[in-house]
Amino acid sequence: MKVISSIRTVQNILISLRNKRKTIGLVPTMGAFHEGHLALMRTAKQECDFVVVSLFVNPLQFGPSEDFNRYPRDLARDRTLAKSTGVDLLWTPDAHDIVPPDLATSVDVARVTDRWEGAVRPGHFRGVATIVAKLFQIIKPDIAYFGQKDYQQTVVIRQLIRDLHFDLKMRVMPTVRETDGLAMSSRNQFLSPEGRAAATVLYRALQHAQQLVKKGERHCHYLQKEVESLIKKEPVAKIDYVAFCHPETLEPVDQILGKTVLLMAVKIGSVRLIDNVIVGR
Amino acid sequence: MKVISSIRTVQNILISLRNKRKTIGLVPTMGAFHEGHLALMRTAKQECDFVVVSLFVNPLQFGPSEDFNRYPRDLARDRTLAKSTGVDLLWTPDAHDIVPPDLATSVDVARVTDRWEGAVRPGHFRGVATIVAKLFQIIKPDIAYFGQKDYQQTVVIRQLIRDLHFDLKMRVMPTVRETDGLAMSSRNQFLSPEGRAAATVLYRALQHAQQLVKKGERHCHYLQKEVESLIKKEPVAKIDYVAFCHPETLEPVDQILGKTVLLMAVKIGSVRLIDNVIVGR
Repeated sequence: MKVISSIRTVQNILISLRNKRKTIGLVPTMGAFHEGHLALMRTAKQECDFVVVSLFVNPLQFGPSEDFNRYPRDLARDRTLAKSTGVDLLWTPDAHDIVPPDLATSVDVARVTDRWEGAVRPGHFRGVATIVAKLFQIIKPDIAYFGQKDYQQTVVIRQLIRDLHFDLKMRVMPTVRETDGLAMSSRNQFLSPEGRAAATVLYRALQHAQQLVKKGERHCHYLQKEVESLIKKEPVAKIDYVAFCHPETLEPVDQILGKTVLLMAVKIGSVRLIDNVIVGR
Repeated sequence: MKVISSIRTVQNILISLRNKRKTIGLVPTMGAFHEGHLALMRTAKQECDFVVVSLFVNPLQFGPSEDFNRYPRDLARDRTLAKSTGVDLLWTPDAHDIVPPDLATSVDVARVTDRWEGAVRPGHFRGVATIVAKLFQIIKPDIAYFGQKDYQQTVVIRQLIRDLHFDLKMRVMPTVRETDGLAMSSRNQFLSPEGRAAATVLYRALQHAQQLVKKGERHCHYLQKEVESLIKKEPVAKIDYVAFCHPETLEPVDQILGKTVLLMAVKIGSVRLIDNVIVGR
């Protein structure tokens, strides 16, 4: 596995691969790899001839009061983990090449960013869309891989791909969970031992909703109350939002009439966690 | 010359050309061709194996009180003129393919859009950047051609190309003028006979400034007063702005210390005209 920072060097490698009709996969990451990332990398390696993992902690997607400086960084560990999956290139661009001081262009996706993470984290998705557009432009992948855990992000990026005519396929892979159901996240390491135990409440709440829907419950108001009261039993858990939404528009729905996404954001102490599940069909 | 609307059909043609290592030129236009457009097309044809002229009146770059509906449209005439230049493909995309009702993504270039046309026409350059990004993504040209007449637009697009890593060369061609100096523009046809005569004042003012600078004048405040008083001698002319600016940042400058762009926007009756010239070196 090569580890390269230079945009130009990476592009030259990719040009020669494309000339040989090799398919290129991209796994965009911010590092701090966990099994979720590694699953994306393994799938990419199965589906593409050459896999680029980009590792870039995107300053544009963090708000001024958020954890950019605190975000976990460990290149040596990430390098070993990425290599173990068989990916071909770990691309670690320098911040000043991706976000130079004279960067003036931003990419904004409207509507699907109005609610949920977009509402709580103003500018977050503009930061995501701008950098993802840049990564797509630089790498020109045939397939790009994202995790379902950041559900709203996948909706935003799907819209971005369609609107800006990116010539690539997007693959969204299932959320990878700890054995007790907690969704893998780089931020889990900030949980205290008590918080770590309490954090399973998100998955328990998602499962509870899923079971109620399976049993025939269709009223989202009732389902939401059920989910919220389950979460509230955890004293350290503070609900940011719990919402049953249309899977593409992310608008709240009143009834489970088809495929619906249950989105939630819950603070466990000072650590904000998000999770989601698809209910209905 | 082919005339095609379908994005997919155009892209299939371009894929096979690219496989044969042909270079592709793009001349983005809103139609209503004049010698300025035709000069871009002829240069593109000299420099590229295959030239696409896009003809799309971009609704996003017109403000609500602007002349989108009134903007001149004459496909039969444009087709004949484009064909005469030897370009290969006139691409006339349907509005609903470029600006579908569910379009949610916009591309914004900050700073260089703060002043001048950007200040007078809020949202104009966001509309330009969004559509130009889409055209670049669809056509993937090796070289894209623009006219210097829309000077600020060329600065915005140059920044867009750099920021979003578009893999293309931008060529800016000199403004083509009528024999009396009036810059060619699709909007000139809206001038009354009296307005048409008065409209030469823009070029006369640009030339006056250029001569003063050649003679050694360096003080922009003085130069601006000179230019403005010349324009004010035309009773039907109303100055929107006259500004000596840094050629890349478009920030006003006090002294002509190097290459400087003189930008102006002047209303002749109800017709708003823009023009510019480079002074200094």
